[in-house]
Amino acid sequence: WSLSNDLVHVFRWKEDSLKGYQIDHFGFLEDGTFKQRYLVNDEHWHQKGGPILFYTGNEGDITWFCNNTGFMWDIAEELKAMLVFAEHRYYGESLPFGKDSYSDTKHLNYLSSEQALADFAVLIKELKRTVPGSQLSPVIAIGGSYGGMLSAWMRMKYPNVVVGALAASAPIWQFPDMAPCGDFYKIVTQDFAEGGLNCDVNIRKSWKAVDNVAATDSGLRWLSSEFSLCSPLKKTDVAGFKAWLQETWVNLAMVDYPYEANFLQPLPRWPVQVVCKYLGFDPYSVSDYQMLSAISEAVRVYYNYTGSAPCLNTSSTATGSLGYIGWYYQACTEMVMPMCTDGVQDMFEPQEWNFQAFSDECHALFGVRPRADWAGIFYGGLDIASHSNIVFSNGGLDPWSGGGVTRNISDSMVAIVIPDGAHHLDLRYNNEYDPHSVLSARAQEVEYFKLWIRQAKKQL
Amino acid sequence: WSLSNDLVHVFRWKEDSLKGYQIDHFGFLEDGTFKQRYLVNDEHWHQKGGPILFYTGNEGDITWFCNNTGFMWDIAEELKAMLVFAEHRYYGESLPFGKDSYSDTKHLNYLSSEQALADFAVLIKELKRTVPGSQLSPVIAIGGSYGGMLSAWMRMKYPNVVVGALAASAPIWQFPDMAPCGDFYKIVTQDFAEGGLNCDVNIRKSWKAVDNVAATDSGLRWLSSEFSLCSPLKKTDVAGFKAWLQETWVNLAMVDYPYEANFLQPLPRWPVQVVCKYLGFDPYSVSDYQMLSAISEAVRVYYNYTGSAPCLNTSSTATGSLGYIGWYYQACTEMVMPMCTDGVQDMFEPQEWNFQAFSDECHALFGVRPRADWAGIFYGGLDIASHSNIVFSNGGLDPWSGGGVTRNISDSMVAIVIPDGAHHLDLRYNNEYDPHSVLSARAQEVEYFKLWIRQAKKQL
Repeated sequence: WSLSNDLVHVFRWKEDSLKGYQIDHFGFLEDGTFKQRYLVNDEHWHQKGGPILFYTGNEGDITWFCNNTGFMWDIAEELKAMLVFAEHRYYGESLPFGKDSYSDTKHLNYLSSEQALADFAVLIKELKRTVPGSQLSPVIAIGGSYGGMLSAWMRMKYPNVVVGALAASAPIWQFPDMAPCGDFYKIVTQDFAEGGLNCDVNIRKSWKAVDNVAATDSGLRWLSSEFSLCSPLKKTDVAGFKAWLQETWVNLAMVDYPYEANFLQPLPRWPVQVVCKYLGFDPYSVSDYQMLSAISEAVRVYYNYTGSAPCLNTSSTATGSLGYIGWYYQACTEMVMPMCTDGVQDMFEPQEWNFQAFSDECHALFGVRPRADWAGIFYGGLDIASHSNIVFSNGGLDPWSGGGVTRNISDSMVAIVIPDGAHHLDLRYNNEYDPHSVLSARAQEVEYFKLWIRQAKKQL
Repeated sequence: WSLSNDLVHVFRWKEDSLKGYQIDHFGFLEDGTFKQRYLVNDEHWHQKGGPILFYTGNEGDITWFCNNTGFMWDIAEELKAMLVFAEHRYYGESLPFGKDSYSDTKHLNYLSSEQALADFAVLIKELKRTVPGSQLSPVIAIGGSYGGMLSAWMRMKYPNVVVGALAASAPIWQFPDMAPCGDFYKIVTQDFAEGGLNCDVNIRKSWKAVDNVAATDSGLRWLSSEFSLCSPLKKTDVAGFKAWLQETWVNLAMVDYPYEANFLQPLPRWPVQVVCKYLGFDPYSVSDYQMLSAISEAVRVYYNYTGSAPCLNTSSTATGSLGYIGWYYQACTEMVMPMCTDGVQDMFEPQEWNFQAFSDECHALFGVRPRADWAGIFYGGLDIASHSNIVFSNGGLDPWSGGGVTRNISDSMVAIVIPDGAHHLDLRYNNEYDPHSVLSARAQEVEYFKLWIRQAKKQL
């Protein structure tokens, strides 16, 4: 699938046809505005009240999310829906202060989920005010991952603006005191345990092998060469090298899709199984060097599936379409998501959740300190039963499902679990390799959309 | 009733036992905290899960609201409830920047309803965390006027924190495009029309009389003397003088209580009727001077019922317990409430709603411009049917009922109208002169409280 065809339909309303949005919705001292990017497709839209499917953009370039949310394109015709993909402030081209947006704490001050939701609400109201025929169009919020959190929160905080929400792989409970901090890495480990014989066991043993080999200068040279690293590994880089490996396994678990795909990286179908083919040996029969040679082969599945990577870069693990600094700022302020490992229930080196250390790091980096309880207070934490019309979908393979809503809360706060799905598989284009579970999930989701649309029409 | 007895129970938790509250809940650059004042009474509280009645403080000193919300004191024993009265930031003693809080636009930047609601949410969570036994206590938000808007919005925005809300005389629809701008003054006029023969007619005629008399220096001197004004009236003050008269009639309509009371001013029972006794003459049989002599008598009912006022001060119309500058700042930012008169359906001089002029005035005063649509987008405007557990009560005599919810929205979004009630009469202490309608309203409100409490217990 390529974006180019659809971009023809995009920008039907020019960016500058909108008044700028307030940089600060919650204060009046900063009265500046900025241009928010959003993509529109209305080729299937029924102008007399056809619904609007509104993607609540997350931490990255909106064209990339647009590209990876084929589900909306697949159902547009059936629902006679307009598609809108709205970019989240501070990402992609929606920079409140242009190139200064990330320059300091002062300019970063308006990067928050509350401000982003307010942007979406104002944008929807503005579209309804200006697009002929859209006044009666029910709007459904759709998002995945952090974008799914936003779509759920959009319905909770602005039920006057959206009639319902699909929150795909949205870890709204990955916050302090809502879910065990270890679940995330336990699920990653399960994926590898099921990916092939000995796979998780060998990864669990690999950390010590790295320490052993990296203890000598010749070992460091060997590692640099064996992993084709772009910059030679130094003694002070070893912790970073292990963190890079760990994140690689996490990412593989997230994007363990049943077909060739290019989300975080171009990958073969069922990439965890492919990786695990290299890690099936008897863990007690190999040397540290043999172990790490195999790990290096495994890692290349992720970083060099296309064979075009001249070397591996340990400072990055995925697509450049995501805004890592912005997301780290958000994690350092309100998106406080505890994670921990114990090395027993998971295949990683034990690491407790240390809020104080995290807070100190945030302060050193951004001059801010995270507020651990705020998101729970503002977005309701576990107490969301009084809301309505939200579908939470989660993939059983997806580590983020540990912080997701995987059981029904009420008749209209519904959980859909896709046992063999990875991170928001349901949001992707239909594919011949799709497992039955995701087809069924998508069908249910469309049924809920139709229900919410009927409810909305009844209230007119 | 005097506050002193109850103050014994207040401050059971010392103010400094709380961590300060964030001055900015929605940004992380301003990381300062401030002390919020709140009053607590738990003499009737059942420590094992008895409810908490939480007054969402409005634009003034919280002890004054505490004093004028006898309803909560009257029902505490029956409900075995704890009472909490929380002061709104920037009012009373809850000043985020101490004496600098009002010094400029920068310091005023955190005065908003969103910040205030966040304060209330954090305070409730903190009480539940620290007060033994309160973890299981359902919290009901209660407020009147702007405080009632806050209690309704508290339930809408933080249904995880409060199980329901009583919004008394809360004009949540007194915003652009939600209610006709003329309703407010029409209701004032009706009150005076029903207050006595010719009463509204004479007030309608009085404006021209003021203009005529104030046209000469001797007339100005006569007016100053006749009204016992503290400062002699100048030609440039005449518009202000008429605005002061107009606000006096408005305030009388608001506090037209069936018994002697001291809310905005000490007043006799049914003060509008008392005022109208002075205004019953044939409007066509009096001179301008006779007309204004009578107006002056009428006005004294409001300003000098106790006989202790040495002179009348046209720069103020009510109690000093309200924070006028703060409220004007709020009106100049998000609380944009259009008002207008036409002199036909109301007894005032015609005045259109002029947003631009209002905005310019705000900019001159505070350096900010109001955002006419924001409150409607954030708080849902007319589209609040998806919420639950809110009772909107309104008095038929109260001009603010024009912007209130006076018809049921759903089974759990309920309107109670008190035909012979003025501004949040139902929130006041029981009184032997209370009309049946307010007794019935209070009884219904308590039944809803009990229902919400039962619902909450069931969900534990």
